[in-house]
Amino acid sequence: MTLTQAAPRQRATLPRLHNHASLVVHGQDRTGIVAAVGNVLHDYGANIVSLDQYSDNPQGGNFFQRTVFGVDDLKAALPDIDRDLAAKLGDGLRFTLRDLSVPQRVAIFASKSEHCLLDLLWRQRRGELAVSVAMVISNHPDLAEEVRSFGIPFVHVPSTDKPAAEAEHLRLLQGNVDLLVLARYMQILSGEFIERVGVPIINIHHSFLPAFIGAGPYAKAKERGVKLVGATAHYVTEDLDEGPIIEQDVVRVTHAHTATDLQRRGADVERAVLSRAVQWHSEDRVIRHGNQTIVFP
Amino acid sequence: MTLTQAAPRQRATLPRLHNHASLVVHGQDRTGIVAAVGNVLHDYGANIVSLDQYSDNPQGGNFFQRTVFGVDDLKAALPDIDRDLAAKLGDGLRFTLRDLSVPQRVAIFASKSEHCLLDLLWRQRRGELAVSVAMVISNHPDLAEEVRSFGIPFVHVPSTDKPAAEAEHLRLLQGNVDLLVLARYMQILSGEFIERVGVPIINIHHSFLPAFIGAGPYAKAKERGVKLVGATAHYVTEDLDEGPIIEQDVVRVTHAHTATDLQRRGADVERAVLSRAVQWHSEDRVIRHGNQTIVFP
Amino acid sequence: MTLTQAAPRQRATLPRLHNHASLVVHGQDRTGIVAAVGNVLHDYGANIVSLDQYSDNPQGGNFFQRTVFGVDDLKAALPDIDRDLAAKLGDGLRFTLRDLSVPQRVAIFASKSEHCLLDLLWRQRRGELAVSVAMVISNHPDLAEEVRSFGIPFVHVPSTDKPAAEAEHLRLLQGNVDLLVLARYMQILSGEFIERVGVPIINIHHSFLPAFIGAGPYAKAKERGVKLVGATAHYVTEDLDEGPIIEQDVVRVTHAHTATDLQRRGADVERAVLSRAVQWHSEDRVIRHGNQTIVFP
Amino acid sequence: MTLTQAAPRQRATLPRLHNHASLVVHGQDRTGIVAAVGNVLHDYGANIVSLDQYSDNPQGGNFFQRTVFGVDDLKAALPDIDRDLAAKLGDGLRFTLRDLSVPQRVAIFASKSEHCLLDLLWRQRRGELAVSVAMVISNHPDLAEEVRSFGIPFVHVPSTDKPAAEAEHLRLLQGNVDLLVLARYMQILSGEFIERVGVPIINIHHSFLPAFIGAGPYAKAKERGVKLVGATAHYVTEDLDEGPIIEQDVVRVTHAHTATDLQRRGADVERAVLSRAVQWHSEDRVIRHGNQTIVFP
Repeated sequence: MTLTQAAPRQRATLPRLHNHASLVVHGQDRTGIVAAVGNVLHDYGANIVSLDQYSDNPQGGNFFQRTVFGVDDLKAALPDIDRDLAAKLGDGLRFTLRDLSVPQRVAIFASKSEHCLLDLLWRQRRGELAVSVAMVISNHPDLAEEVRSFGIPFVHVPSTDKPAAEAEHLRLLQGNVDLLVLARYMQILSGEFIERVGVPIINIHHSFLPAFIGAGPYAKAKERGVKLVGATAHYVTEDLDEGPIIEQDVVRVTHAHTATDLQRRGADVERAVLSRAVQWHSEDRVIRHGNQTIVFP
Repeated sequence: MTLTQAAPRQRATLPRLHNHASLVVHGQDRTGIVAAVGNVLHDYGANIVSLDQYSDNPQGGNFFQRTVFGVDDLKAALPDIDRDLAAKLGDGLRFTLRDLSVPQRVAIFASKSEHCLLDLLWRQRRGELAVSVAMVISNHPDLAEEVRSFGIPFVHVPSTDKPAAEAEHLRLLQGNVDLLVLARYMQILSGEFIERVGVPIINIHHSFLPAFIGAGPYAKAKERGVKLVGATAHYVTEDLDEGPIIEQDVVRVTHAHTATDLQRRGADVERAVLSRAVQWHSEDRVIRHGNQTIVFP
Repeated sequence: MTLTQAAPRQRATLPRLHNHASLVVHGQDRTGIVAAVGNVLHDYGANIVSLDQYSDNPQGGNFFQRTVFGVDDLKAALPDIDRDLAAKLGDGLRFTLRDLSVPQRVAIFASKSEHCLLDLLWRQRRGELAVSVAMVISNHPDLAEEVRSFGIPFVHVPSTDKPAAEAEHLRLLQGNVDLLVLARYMQILSGEFIERVGVPIINIHHSFLPAFIGAGPYAKAKERGVKLVGATAHYVTEDLDEGPIIEQDVVRVTHAHTATDLQRRGADVERAVLSRAVQWHSEDRVIRHGNQTIVFP
Repeated sequence: MTLTQAAPRQRATLPRLHNHASLVVHGQDRTGIVAAVGNVLHDYGANIVSLDQYSDNPQGGNFFQRTVFGVDDLKAALPDIDRDLAAKLGDGLRFTLRDLSVPQRVAIFASKSEHCLLDLLWRQRRGELAVSVAMVISNHPDLAEEVRSFGIPFVHVPSTDKPAAEAEHLRLLQGNVDLLVLARYMQILSGEFIERVGVPIINIHHSFLPAFIGAGPYAKAKERGVKLVGATAHYVTEDLDEGPIIEQDVVRVTHAHTATDLQRRGADVERAVLSRAVQWHSEDRVIRHGNQTIVFP
């Protein structure tokens, strides 16, 4: 399998982002950060398209900033901008600088459920997600044909031998992707895998008020007569389903919905929430901080 | 204090409900119930305004039906209709028949928070809730003037001596009200009180995905970075916050909202959800069944 | 092309609807209708699964009722039930009786936009829509491969010669379908075509508050700075975009969304709204009355 | 009448905003604006709490920026900061600098409807709106007692003689308020009044998809069978109901809602939308630009 042979149409770059970069600054708040960033970008004749900034506590809190800017001949200028920012921002502040004309490379893990996976592939093809989908990996072969019809490689890695599967996953992913998305993958990732894969992982799971722990959550939600079912997209950490929340949404249900209906309505929310989370992540709008996220609009 | 001296403007009857009654039938499903109900009402020349029916399992499940009908001289006809329905429906089916021109009498328990209480009083005064508010009881005196400006009795019953307070509550409520609403009352009712008060009790509490147990839920929700805060209105049972859910809703929040902001946004949802729950209950739209509710639209 | 050769997997019948029928009664309200319907169904040992009824005015208004019931050997019993209902309901009330194990046959008209079309095909394949898709007709060939991958016939009928196109449409549709869905078809149907095709037609269009008439509505909405974009699904009448509304929804947008973003967000609402409208229609939940609809939940 | 004698509790300043100011910059985009603002604020040791910036076109478009910052002894520093900003920003960019510890002074025009008015007064008292309510003016005396119970002056100015009424309005408002809110005032303001009053005016009106022009919109919406009713808050311009939109929202309705029900549901949306619009305006989050608004979150 040659992972680089994905169909060209999925490589589409959002044209307006040519010669544009995102800059994300995150760290300990102090006075002068805006001036420092502004001065460096001004030195390179950069035009700031958008700038969002948030401080969680004006007295010694944390600072979060996302800037999108354009400069002529961005590729040539980026290393210099990077160097100057490092010099001006100094310790206590981390930053990432990214050429927005290069889409982030994503791998999607799926199982048998298609709803989240197809929604991502379809939006990517329509140009709504600023990512390229490098591959889809599934522990079941069912969705192979569907995925390949999008011109995207599909790799079947059975989950029967988990250590072997994770080794195969790492071999496929390392160096090839910037983001891993679990589109209803339904398998628990080992802490070692999360550590070694080295890229952010986004998961989607159903959510209820109140929460229903354990197996058969939709049956339990039906039994309790909930009026809303929801979904939560979050970054994966070793604490299962407890990582920083990126996005949530709910949909209304009634007593007339069966447990199957709840599941279908839930699937609609899941695919919408996961797609938004992936989109925002891929546009560098999401900053992780402790167990929460800052999401710039 | 004479509880019956509430200002007349709060007794307003929804005019269109003159000579109309609601009939709620609930029990074991079998064939022929619709025919039986239809025939009895037809015998009295009743005009059926709306009828909603639901069966949770066509094979031997549970049957739920709400009918609103009008007949000339309803008050005279009701006892006969009641007798005929009892004869025709037989065992295994309970029913309640209620003259809709008589608003349900409600007591509201409040504490220091005004948002849920005021929303109920305003809506009642505007004619949006088919209830009369018999009294407001609070363990704090703060809201007395506000409540009395609506022409509604306010009784301050401190919660320092809980058995004494509950005895006082029972003395005020028994025989005087059809429904008790906890509008952010913040005190736990004893199982004995719930048993002895003998009327349904509706409570409102904040809700999150995931749930945050214990004190300071908004601070915890902020720490976790939730993107939605919500509220759940439910009937009170001995299992605190675990009774049948009547209504739920959520509102969107962001990282920029402080814990105080979350609480304010939460207050907005709480008052809306509680008002809807009280309205639906007062119009006999809600049927309790096990730990769930059927809510007819 | 043999239209009956659609792949078997799209013919899936919702299993729970075996031996179940829907009955929709609509006409002038009078006393005794519920009794009449109840008695006829009781005579056949029918189990009523759900019943929703609405009267728009208790004094001489219009009556709307939807009943779902099960009987053993439905196919044998239906003609007799039909005859008895006709006798009992008499003049002034129309009714339709439909075997729910036979999915409604749908044709979809599309153009170049895929979002509404694909959402319908996916949901149909997932078993969420109680319809069989008999064919997709488009005035552009672009979506042929995509449609055929679902095992559904795709027919390209160019719209260059409109009378010829409509004649071809009628030849393909008449006798073959129960519903026509315009999934962003973007062509105006002649009054004669609407008349002759003889089945309901559902259309989807974007909606704004306020409305923006004419070409380029998203550019105008952007210029006006709307905060919501929406979609409306409605039955097609000769008054373009003015037929009875089945379903509407909106999504929130901000100043930061470009006209293209508005269109994408709009596309998400369009596909959701159209799918709900088709689902509700196919389950006989929608009753047309004058220029409005009654939609039973 | 002494307008300055409003009860002290309504003057509450949000404590966290002590020594904080908002800076709004708006005009023609060019490189270096962020650096200029950042440098000026840095010179005064300002801590930037939040900064949001938007450009509607990176090539020669319009620039919008809202900054909230804190400095020790703000009142002393503001004139100097103002002078330095004027020097650095130069022509083509307007800016406003405002001490956030001084609440904006608001007058509310009402008629007989209470829902929007009371929601504003109540939120103001709870500390949710960073405004002081200087007075309520109504063309009907009905709400006098209600308003005065909040410790706010109520002035009855009949609308029978419109020129006289507008003269009286101007006499009361000029110099006394920073914002005028029309809380279902139902009277058309003359272009001359809008010009002479010299402060922004926010209005709320109901909204539908599609729009229903003229009298009795709820009856028309009912007739058309709309599934959503909504509200739009906007700045008032001479084009009635056509000014820049600040906020919109909708609520779901069904065929079972009467025209009166639509109006009540509409009232709920109206009060929520108007309160949000006033809140955002009072926190300097809304920038008018042509016939649209930029609303920073």
